Amino acid sequence: MIPPYTLTLSCPDRPGIVAAVASLLLEQGFNIVDAQQFDDPETGRFFMRVVFAPFGEGKALADFELIAERFAMEWRLRGAGDRPRVLILVSKFDHCLVDLLYRTRIGELEMDIVGVVANHPREAYSRIDLGSVPFHYLPVTRDTKLEQETRLVQLVGETRADLVVLARYMQVLSDGLVGKLPGKCVNIHHSFLPGFKGAKPYHQAHERGVKIIGVTGHYATEDLDEGPIIDQDVVRVSHRDTVEDLIRKGRDLEVAVLARAVRAHLEHRVLVYGRKTVVFG
Amino acid sequence: MIPPYTLTLSCPDRPGIVAAVASLLLEQGFNIVDAQQFDDPETGRFFMRVVFAPFGEGKALADFELIAERFAMEWRLRGAGDRPRVLILVSKFDHCLVDLLYRTRIGELEMDIVGVVANHPREAYSRIDLGSVPFHYLPVTRDTKLEQETRLVQLVGETRADLVVLARYMQVLSDGLVGKLPGKCVNIHHSFLPGFKGAKPYHQAHERGVKIIGVTGHYATEDLDEGPIIDQDVVRVSHRDTVEDLIRKGRDLEVAVLARAVRAHLEHRVLVYGRKTVVFG
Amino acid sequence: MIPPYTLTLSCPDRPGIVAAVASLLLEQGFNIVDAQQFDDPETGRFFMRVVFAPFGEGKALADFELIAERFAMEWRLRGAGDRPRVLILVSKFDHCLVDLLYRTRIGELEMDIVGVVANHPREAYSRIDLGSVPFHYLPVTRDTKLEQETRLVQLVGETRADLVVLARYMQVLSDGLVGKLPGKCVNIHHSFLPGFKGAKPYHQAHERGVKIIGVTGHYATEDLDEGPIIDQDVVRVSHRDTVEDLIRKGRDLEVAVLARAVRAHLEHRVLVYGRKTVVFG
Amino acid sequence: MIPPYTLTLSCPDRPGIVAAVASLLLEQGFNIVDAQQFDDPETGRFFMRVVFAPFGEGKALADFELIAERFAMEWRLRGAGDRPRVLILVSKFDHCLVDLLYRTRIGELEMDIVGVVANHPREAYSRIDLGSVPFHYLPVTRDTKLEQETRLVQLVGETRADLVVLARYMQVLSDGLVGKLPGKCVNIHHSFLPGFKGAKPYHQAHERGVKIIGVTGHYATEDLDEGPIIDQDVVRVSHRDTVEDLIRKGRDLEVAVLARAVRAHLEHRVLVYGRKTVVFG
Repeated sequence: MIPPYTLTLSCPDRPGIVAAVASLLLEQGFNIVDAQQFDDPETGRFFMRVVFAPFGEGKALADFELIAERFAMEWRLRGAGDRPRVLILVSKFDHCLVDLLYRTRIGELEMDIVGVVANHPREAYSRIDLGSVPFHYLPVTRDTKLEQETRLVQLVGETRADLVVLARYMQVLSDGLVGKLPGKCVNIHHSFLPGFKGAKPYHQAHERGVKIIGVTGHYATEDLDEGPIIDQDVVRVSHRDTVEDLIRKGRDLEVAVLARAVRAHLEHRVLVYGRKTVVFG
Repeated sequence: MIPPYTLTLSCPDRPGIVAAVASLLLEQGFNIVDAQQFDDPETGRFFMRVVFAPFGEGKALADFELIAERFAMEWRLRGAGDRPRVLILVSKFDHCLVDLLYRTRIGELEMDIVGVVANHPREAYSRIDLGSVPFHYLPVTRDTKLEQETRLVQLVGETRADLVVLARYMQVLSDGLVGKLPGKCVNIHHSFLPGFKGAKPYHQAHERGVKIIGVTGHYATEDLDEGPIIDQDVVRVSHRDTVEDLIRKGRDLEVAVLARAVRAHLEHRVLVYGRKTVVFG
Repeated sequence: MIPPYTLTLSCPDRPGIVAAVASLLLEQGFNIVDAQQFDDPETGRFFMRVVFAPFGEGKALADFELIAERFAMEWRLRGAGDRPRVLILVSKFDHCLVDLLYRTRIGELEMDIVGVVANHPREAYSRIDLGSVPFHYLPVTRDTKLEQETRLVQLVGETRADLVVLARYMQVLSDGLVGKLPGKCVNIHHSFLPGFKGAKPYHQAHERGVKIIGVTGHYATEDLDEGPIIDQDVVRVSHRDTVEDLIRKGRDLEVAVLARAVRAHLEHRVLVYGRKTVVFG
Repeated sequence: MIPPYTLTLSCPDRPGIVAAVASLLLEQGFNIVDAQQFDDPETGRFFMRVVFAPFGEGKALADFELIAERFAMEWRLRGAGDRPRVLILVSKFDHCLVDLLYRTRIGELEMDIVGVVANHPREAYSRIDLGSVPFHYLPVTRDTKLEQETRLVQLVGETRADLVVLARYMQVLSDGLVGKLPGKCVNIHHSFLPGFKGAKPYHQAHERGVKIIGVTGHYATEDLDEGPIIDQDVVRVSHRDTVEDLIRKGRDLEVAVLARAVRAHLEHRVLVYGRKTVVFG
């Protein structure tokens, strides 16, 4: 089977978009495998994700520029061969890293991990089998933050990473760095945003006596903990749960939500608009 | 604003369906407000739901027959004015009835309740304000079942009901009756099907010691508790929960799932194929 | 069967509490039907709820004062005959009121509703059958707030209400009024606190683009939206959900969580400490 | 801190049990850290779990036999030093094994893994770091099943395993083997029992068109898929989910529920009675 292409686009809503896209695909010999759309009634903006495959002999999609211009589209086309290259950043807690490695290994996440960056040395992760994935120890102190981030930016370039995953990376990235990765840096925050922003959210939650805790997978932006949300999930807690219990229950949520957020990104199902996202099913 | 139309269709999958539908709608002056589709890889069948509204001056959709024939479509087109007429059947427990009446009254469910049929007399529901909805007392015994069902079929005809809702109606409908209502009779079963079919599912669940109970909203078919599932939901239980606790917790599930299933049906978001459903979001 | 008593207590943790309570109950002819306890490791405080019934001929619990003094307990004893008297406050949206009335009527909530107070006239709730429950129309404007609240306090007194339920009552109570009802006033807030405090939380949630919304049942305190949380629940939403969809989905949550919070209170399963609660299962 | 003891017991309900246990503990110099109880109204049986620690100088609990005899108790006492020894059985799919190893390594599960038994060779798990845990390759065919199980029983003996965990072990254990491990063998079944018993439950679920799938952690008994349930969990699915999607979503459930079931067992929070369980919180 010839692998399918994925086209994502957004533009001001007006009649004829679907017809134009569908007709072009048909003319050029493609069959629509899946299509999802969303008209935002508030902004009048139209969002679409189309998966299509050639029937008969495959060829590349031509002439799409004409349609894109006509409808003033922002768009991206990915071939199925485009296997995203992912750089993972991690700190002391390695459960998300271990999980992402495992899901990648068994083929659940279709990505190439091109590097792991940690602010702790390799020994801190001695039980983790990275296989052939390069490990980069980039320690950071208040004084060396700038140099460390410069090196980080270099690594993104050198590894040609399409996506940076903050897998419980506990260093706040500078605005400058985040600004270089718009819609290309997924973070897992261990609270149900917008509740409990900032440091030690499980402690905050315990202090407040909430009956449910949650986590949030989102794109990192210059506004800390304010980036577009991709996915969230929650778990019930009670007065019996200590902070340690919240941390333990939260680990499972963090692993699950980060994996789902990364997966949605890899499958080009997430379209950002402003501080919100369209996440197709 | 001119209210939108909803077109649902299914046909064997082949290239060009979306292009044909979208182009026809555009030519005839309609804008696609929402479109969802599903290609079933197993059966090779294509399902689609399109909501569209006229831009400029509204007119009816013409020439769709040609497309429908070309692609061998099963299809239905509903105008926004088509407010479904619903007949509700109820037995002793009235929580689902009370809930459906309330949701209809506040406009959450856009339907006309054209009658309530019960196998208990009106006094059994003395605290329920039916407003102008006719109440029909159709008692049933083993001996009178046939006559009662004959009267039920008459009522469906007389009220021109589009949908029959079994709102915890505890009588098993005969195959003959159900056969007359294909895809037009929604039932709420108080178990997480296929677990605990048949009578007294909460007792069965308690007996088995499950840690989660559930309910199932489905189309009634001749095969009892085997009809196409529209929606399900669950709630956690523990060893502390008695059968009465399960019944109490289950009530909330029944109310919620039946309302969601009815809503999905009313919005033409459910397409049945075989014993399964496509439920668009 | 002689109905059981419920004893709730809290005191500084030290050895011998359970032995003292259990031995006294045994000596005086009572059998423990249910007992739950919680030692808070942070505060060193001990919480307990004991349900007990007389074996042989029933009599009242004597000499408990001695134990209570010895352990410096805060405690309350309720006989099963103590059916709580509840005053419900409501504004425009009546779904929680309708639900509480229904649950009370079918015996699910074991309470006497001694009055409904609304800031809209009786006609606004014309489809609601209050039975013999008195309705009080207490309109409120910026200028008459003080008088209205004075009347409210009088009503609490006149009706001898044990509990005031704010069933989507959209007026902010003054500190003075709330201060008179410590641990006796349950509110439902339509956000997942501490997220989206204040007005129009569903609008805030939609604006932020969260993927899950929630509601919070809590005791009202002088710090608005900061009272001890009794229960919370959530539901998944997506980019397709408008503010109206959030409001609709939220209604089901509000109804469910308020009913659970009221139920927990009625069953003396909630013990407040500071701004947190112990909620026994 | 001197680590606490855990006492679990069950006996026919009658007055005085709590008083007797609490008084004995007090007399012998122990403080109750946590106590939970359950009176089953159906069977009249009483269940209790008490965690207690010595105040002042620690000593062992004496004279409990007297109380146990008086109330005809089944009971077990575990010291905190009793770190359970666990043997894990695995087949082709290793996600549960990997997860249990990780949770044990970070201290979340307080157990010693004394062996991993697989019916595939070590190479099949080449990316898994077992540390010092012995690996046993016990292939099985129809003809060698008896010998393989004999060797398995030997291994349980040699390793002095307190618990056998079937971590997606896809071989059906013989009645003889299971009979040797009453309440000591935890299995994860990949369906929401009692729905979809037997082979390929995800295929069955897909075939049936359910909208929610689940998994079940339970004690293995001679009646396959009928053992006492410890924990269950579910996840929502839709018509878009293929069998592969169900398998993928199910993996996360399996990992989570098996870990929770094992944890509950390790903490002596599970008491079996008949085919049901009491699982203390």
